[in-house]
Amino acid sequence: MAVDGDFCPYFQQAVELIGRRYSGAITRTLMAGPLRFSELERSIPGISARALTLRLRELENAGIVARQVEPTSPVRVTYELTDKGRALDDVVAELEHWAHDWLAPAEHAHAS
Amino acid sequence: MAVDGDFCPYFQQAVELIGRRYSGAITRTLMAGPLRFSELERSIPGISARALTLRLRELENAGIVARQVEPTSPVRVTYELTDKGRALDDVVAELEHWAHDWLAPAEHAHAS
Repeated sequence: MAVDGDFCPYFQQAVELIGRRYSGAITRTLMAGPLRFSELERSIPGISARALTLRLRELENAGIVARQVEPTSPVRVTYELTDKGRALDDVVAELEHWAHDWLAPAEHAHAS
Repeated sequence: MAVDGDFCPYFQQAVELIGRRYSGAITRTLMAGPLRFSELERSIPGISARALTLRLRELENAGIVARQVEPTSPVRVTYELTDKGRALDDVVAELEHWAHDWLAPAEHAHAS
């Protein structure tokens, strides 16, 4: 898709959704598969339970994350990406590639 | 690059830099070439001069945008992407692709 310099409201909406503090990290972490709340919390250094709850709710409302409740006893709740969320894999991969090329010290750089 | 679920501090740094309000839009707009402050301001609906100044300074400090002063009279100041900034083209393109596929109404969807 050509980037033609005209303002794109959908791009703006996307960048604000994914760019919100921890939203990108949550999306990236869930690319590996569904996780429980406590597993997600441990995977993202510095996130508080409150922030994780808020971000997960936003990502659910945006249709990027789905909350699954398994009817075990006690119930097991997991969070996973929807198709819309998994479709962000190329965005996540390109951003990670850029971050390793331009932000990381040389020993972490992307081998291209 | 594999997305392996381990927390990546460089990814986190990148997503927070680009995801800050308007930073993504500024970066995307400058992909088409250098612009003056007033041109940038007009290109991004709703941005204030103050917010644009702050974001440009952050992007300059991050090495993504360069401020060029041409010694004309009056001086002409333009903003352009550095190599590091231009290297975000694939990130911008993938995010725009996703936004058109998943956020835009069907008539704006990416033709793949």
